[in-house]
Amino acid sequence: MTDQGCVNLRWALALFDGLVEGGMRHLVLSPGSRSTPLVLAAQRQPALTVTPILDERSAAFFALGVARASGRPVGLVCTSGSALAHWFPAVLEASESGIPLVLLSADRPPELRGWGANQTIDQTRFFGVHVRAFHDPGTPEDSPGAGKLMRALGRRAAAESLSDWPGPVHLNLPFREPLVPGVDCRAEATQVQTAVQPPASSHRLGLAGNRTLEAGSRPLTVGLTSQCSGRGLICCGPGDWTADGAEALWQLAARLGVPVLCDPLSGLRFGFGSGSVSDHRLTRYDSLLRHPATAAALKPDWVLRFGRAPVSKTLLGWMAEVPTILVDAGRGWSDPNHDVRLKIDADPAVFCAWLADADLELGTSDPDWLAGWFQAERRLERFATEYLDQAPWCEGHLIRDLIARLPEGEGLLCANSMPIRQLDTWSGRRAQPLRLFGNRGASGIDGQTSTLAGLNAGGVPTTALLGDLSFLHDLSGLTALRTLQRPCIVINNGGGRIFDYLPQHGLPGFETLWRTPVAVDLGALAQTFGLIHRQVSDGAGFQQALSEAIQSSRPGGLIEVVIDADLSRRIHRDFWQTVSRLGDDT
Amino acid sequence: MTDQGCVNLRWALALFDGLVEGGMRHLVLSPGSRSTPLVLAAQRQPALTVTPILDERSAAFFALGVARASGRPVGLVCTSGSALAHWFPAVLEASESGIPLVLLSADRPPELRGWGANQTIDQTRFFGVHVRAFHDPGTPEDSPGAGKLMRALGRRAAAESLSDWPGPVHLNLPFREPLVPGVDCRAEATQVQTAVQPPASSHRLGLAGNRTLEAGSRPLTVGLTSQCSGRGLICCGPGDWTADGAEALWQLAARLGVPVLCDPLSGLRFGFGSGSVSDHRLTRYDSLLRHPATAAALKPDWVLRFGRAPVSKTLLGWMAEVPTILVDAGRGWSDPNHDVRLKIDADPAVFCAWLADADLELGTSDPDWLAGWFQAERRLERFATEYLDQAPWCEGHLIRDLIARLPEGEGLLCANSMPIRQLDTWSGRRAQPLRLFGNRGASGIDGQTSTLAGLNAGGVPTTALLGDLSFLHDLSGLTALRTLQRPCIVINNGGGRIFDYLPQHGLPGFETLWRTPVAVDLGALAQTFGLIHRQVSDGAGFQQALSEAIQSSRPGGLIEVVIDADLSRRIHRDFWQTVSRLGDDT
Repeated sequence: MTDQGCVNLRWALALFDGLVEGGMRHLVLSPGSRSTPLVLAAQRQPALTVTPILDERSAAFFALGVARASGRPVGLVCTSGSALAHWFPAVLEASESGIPLVLLSADRPPELRGWGANQTIDQTRFFGVHVRAFHDPGTPEDSPGAGKLMRALGRRAAAESLSDWPGPVHLNLPFREPLVPGVDCRAEATQVQTAVQPPASSHRLGLAGNRTLEAGSRPLTVGLTSQCSGRGLICCGPGDWTADGAEALWQLAARLGVPVLCDPLSGLRFGFGSGSVSDHRLTRYDSLLRHPATAAALKPDWVLRFGRAPVSKTLLGWMAEVPTILVDAGRGWSDPNHDVRLKIDADPAVFCAWLADADLELGTSDPDWLAGWFQAERRLERFATEYLDQAPWCEGHLIRDLIARLPEGEGLLCANSMPIRQLDTWSGRRAQPLRLFGNRGASGIDGQTSTLAGLNAGGVPTTALLGDLSFLHDLSGLTALRTLQRPCIVINNGGGRIFDYLPQHGLPGFETLWRTPVAVDLGALAQTFGLIHRQVSDGAGFQQALSEAIQSSRPGGLIEVVIDADLSRRIHRDFWQTVSRLGDDT
Repeated sequence: MTDQGCVNLRWALALFDGLVEGGMRHLVLSPGSRSTPLVLAAQRQPALTVTPILDERSAAFFALGVARASGRPVGLVCTSGSALAHWFPAVLEASESGIPLVLLSADRPPELRGWGANQTIDQTRFFGVHVRAFHDPGTPEDSPGAGKLMRALGRRAAAESLSDWPGPVHLNLPFREPLVPGVDCRAEATQVQTAVQPPASSHRLGLAGNRTLEAGSRPLTVGLTSQCSGRGLICCGPGDWTADGAEALWQLAARLGVPVLCDPLSGLRFGFGSGSVSDHRLTRYDSLLRHPATAAALKPDWVLRFGRAPVSKTLLGWMAEVPTILVDAGRGWSDPNHDVRLKIDADPAVFCAWLADADLELGTSDPDWLAGWFQAERRLERFATEYLDQAPWCEGHLIRDLIARLPEGEGLLCANSMPIRQLDTWSGRRAQPLRLFGNRGASGIDGQTSTLAGLNAGGVPTTALLGDLSFLHDLSGLTALRTLQRPCIVINNGGGRIFDYLPQHGLPGFETLWRTPVAVDLGALAQTFGLIHRQVSDGAGFQQALSEAIQSSRPGGLIEVVIDADLSRRIHRDFWQTVSRLGDDT
């Protein structure tokens, strides 16, 4: 008689062979019975690191972090029923941000679906338009071609997750009982030639979007020359740049004679020195554009924008109505102002290299244009430094210290809402590389602590900067922080303080219904999850806590930064108001 | 110029007017900016109780609990982006279990969807086949019919959530800025005549499924008479019975001369005494069917089954191949064995009343049939009592105590996996009513502490019986337990012990990949969330802790029951083995 448990296992083994051939090295699983063949197969695949995490929501954000840090497709396994629904928030972020995930949901076989069986829901096309591909290969069978099919499906799913539009891919995998093979079952993973595989990230960089540049270069050049006339600027939104790509960007900026506005999540503010060409980077635009005369004087005729929309609402509002060329390798069309005249499906680095060499009459002949930007940036940099030097300690000082002190080449995960905006304002630049991470695809409050653990597991030692609500939204993630070498910094200012800056501020019920502070003692919480807890409320305390957390060989733990939110708000308001009134002599 | 913030608010007020007219009394919201018009409107609707909960996943399970306890549609509000994805696990449970939820997701307006705007994903038909209806009324407009439309939509959404197939309904609600109205805005909720509304539950009971009984009674009677020949039994799965419905059920059982096997989640084991007729209830079938001779002797010729499939796998396996008539008001077709010959879309109570009066030749002429069942039940009841009296303290004793001591008419939420199976085995019956709750629609590990808080907020003082993993899967829910009058009882046995009873037990990596214990000190965890913590490990300790938690006017807190899982497994195994070998003389 057929040993169905053995058939299930062989089926799953072939699938993982293909996934590993396609670049997968890490699998995150949540416990369950129906998923047993997948777990047994993963155990037998030596190329895979397997991490078990109880809460599927946390597991998925952890996988997202591993994939972000490693550039490789990361697998997720869960059992049937509501389990896969917990993945959805991280799937949305992966879809919007273009992060390769391979979702492997176990399912009941067709004869039990829709018949009221236990832990059974309709899992077919569960993630709708939010995955790049969906596959349901049916139940495992002992047929001659089965192994070949599943291995091919594994390779294909990995490739689909890494294509020129990277993102999540869903495989729904029904299994019949028995789920555990008999003692006579012989089933092993194939020795996969992992060494000869190209790293997944180069795959993405090398192939993405060349088509348009090759096949459509004539319409492209006509489009570019017709739009890029007069004074321009380059705006780099959230994205992934390599050193080579950045070098091509600087060459292009020099050739066009335009400034490069660098979003904090572009990664270009830290490291990526411009080598042979002068530095065209600007990082203070969110502040300097609050000065009306400067904002008016620096208004461009055209914008060349890379990647997703920038974090700064000031910048985005100011760029409205300016004709824009958008370059993005993915299928995203990030144009909330509806100003894009030309969308180019290309990897930004490939595009920069092509355009820097192209024989096109583009760009800015006005030499005062660049000089005006640099002068404004330097003035703002000087003013911000002087302002912070005399202001009471607040997030600005914290971010300045943090950017200065994080070790070279390491990572910083910055949460949405206030932290990323404050980082945008205060980070400035630094010479040493630093990898900036942020879940800005869906910009959710969710999954931050799990993403942090995943980034560290993915090979980039990463520190986090979170707000208290964001931290508390992902309590399950705390179980994965115990062994991290880098700290999780939580700005505890009593709830969602971004609302203090919005028109909702001061409405009746504001505290309860918008700001929503959570009454939890972070010290007790840290103790519960075995995290070292350091509470600080000033610069000296923060610097010491950060040094201890980073330099020690012990886990980084939790650094709780107690901030007086009302004071902080006054400082920020005063800073912006002073900037807006700066005279020409400063 | 139009005050768009005021238009938004009036639009939202009209929607809530309709929802309240349709029966809604409770709204659960998570913080956000885009949802501001909904929050402002909810504040102004005096018939609504508003509960803010940070984590949308917890918020949705809380709403599920309120809806279960109150029988009314409960509203959920969240902001745009990934927020609504966190609702999905609870939406699945609501869909499978037929619980009325109205999902109100705020969204960006169409001009920002798909254009890379912040916190924007495709929310259209987000819940796919898992909601009863989806509506997108577009952006608020200041047109003459707008108020009427939105009020009608509110009534309709509530009605759809309560129809003969109750469940979640999704309204996706885009808003344009500004989100806060100007100071001159005049907008108030309408005084809704809430007093004259029929309670939602009677709506459900009264209307559900009568159609089939009226219009199709001839095919129905032919179907029934052809199937129900010989010795039969009634099996009541998870469901909601009223006292009148139960009385109709007992009348029917008496007329047919058949036993009634009562799943713990049928609610029929506790209270619902059979009044004028003798008691046909059986609760020990999971144990007694493990005795091979008894199982063979009591095999029926037909089964009349109400509601979802029963918890007991023993029962379900034993009923396989027996022709079955399924009565369910919803569209569910709970027949994992594929034995249903006739599915009747009717409320079980309505069906019982109809069939008890119908002039049909049905049922069992064999008087030994009922006697055999009662004898087996009594024997098992006696044996189980004697067995527990001499066995080391374990879950059986705990459940016996718990069932005996919970106050009349209160609730017990029982988690999936081990707790519900052990309750099935050991609960027996009791004379006083007790409402049993369990999320058995999707049977997930998820949302238990939030559901507990919701049940209590919905008007039924409810105690919970959870395992440690289930408890830890819903950490966000702990923020809502602080003020509960009833305790959350957690059986801490070091991970997912159901796997100890499955073939996975003892596989390599079993502890790490299947049982997955989480290293968290529950005492510290309780302290973090401000919960009273009582740790017990024997009968006296448990009884005292339970008395204190229930009788005191202080919040119930957390009762941690430390169980030696290996000993517990040995006791259960030994009990079943002894049952299977019971002689005829016992």
